[in-house]
Amino acid sequence: MNFSSKLIEDAVNAFATLPGIGKKTALRLTLHLLNMPPEVSESLCEPILKMRQNIQFCSTCHNISDEAMCSICTDKGRDRSVICVVESIRDIMAIENTNQYRGLFHILGGVISPIEGIGPSDLNINTLIDRVKTDEVKEIIMAISPTIDGETTIFYLSKQLAELPVKITTLARGISFGGELEYADELTLGRSIAARLPYGK
Amino acid sequence: MNFSSKLIEDAVNAFATLPGIGKKTALRLTLHLLNMPPEVSESLCEPILKMRQNIQFCSTCHNISDEAMCSICTDKGRDRSVICVVESIRDIMAIENTNQYRGLFHILGGVISPIEGIGPSDLNINTLIDRVKTDEVKEIIMAISPTIDGETTIFYLSKQLAELPVKITTLARGISFGGELEYADELTLGRSIAARLPYGK
Repeated sequence: MNFSSKLIEDAVNAFATLPGIGKKTALRLTLHLLNMPPEVSESLCEPILKMRQNIQFCSTCHNISDEAMCSICTDKGRDRSVICVVESIRDIMAIENTNQYRGLFHILGGVISPIEGIGPSDLNINTLIDRVKTDEVKEIIMAISPTIDGETTIFYLSKQLAELPVKITTLARGISFGGELEYADELTLGRSIAARLPYGK
Repeated sequence: MNFSSKLIEDAVNAFATLPGIGKKTALRLTLHLLNMPPEVSESLCEPILKMRQNIQFCSTCHNISDEAMCSICTDKGRDRSVICVVESIRDIMAIENTNQYRGLFHILGGVISPIEGIGPSDLNINTLIDRVKTDEVKEIIMAISPTIDGETTIFYLSKQLAELPVKITTLARGISFGGELEYADELTLGRSIAARLPYGK
């Protein structure tokens, strides 16, 4: 594409480095900023740069944080006897948005995946075991995706934690609320029948 | 959404001010930058800020430019006797990408639209007339969208230029290349039959 301006071309190329943003969208965003006062570009870039420069990772749970410890770990109102083990920051946000959980978290940073060359040493497993040993943790919730790699990770963690006096639980599995039964996959539906619950519980 | 970090929240909100980017995409972009080294965020923001601070508008044709005059107006190899009148910068890029035009341009900055309150005085019409008077312009191509507002603008411009010794042309209209005849709209198809061309021209 011919931009007739190096400045525009550089800005378009910068936007196009972002995932899911192609050259056409990048041009649209650039022309949008061009139509707006210069302050709009500044108030776009300033928080992004500030975020990347100042962000920290919580020394306890590896969550993103503005301080050395994250707002969840420092919250006195949370139940310190339960740790919910998740893969990534995004999972914490998803669980927090449900307003159904008041315990702490621990981010693994991924799942064990032999194909991608991710072994237990690449994940935040040692810090989890240390937390279980030192803090008064009674329950570990494995909130990890029910994929093959996820199940492998849960199995590995449960072996590592077997010696410690802690209860290990996983998220309930079954058909989704609001989902049509005919569209549920066979594995989920089959297991949902096998693990059926008494009505009203 | 609960971000557990003010820095992340601000960055997400900054991304979400861009057109076509919602909160979820903004979060994805923010987490992408978080996973990358800080230099990636800098090389995203730097060209954007630089573009917005340093961009100029060509004093002749109102095109975006790195200098006081744009690269098209300063190009000695272009035909100075033809001016192509367009609505916006994007139209120049589209025409330049065809590699079919070697004349100059003039950006109106929109079209006359009584509904949106845009009158002739809001557009770069006086500078166009000055150019036609002073430069040796032989032809004005009206490359304006064939909408009602666009046609009104072409009509207004042709009246304004009527006294001057300049030929006024418009883009050829008819069915699109590669288009299926049955999907062409009735107006275009009807006019294409009425304005049929000798084969081979």
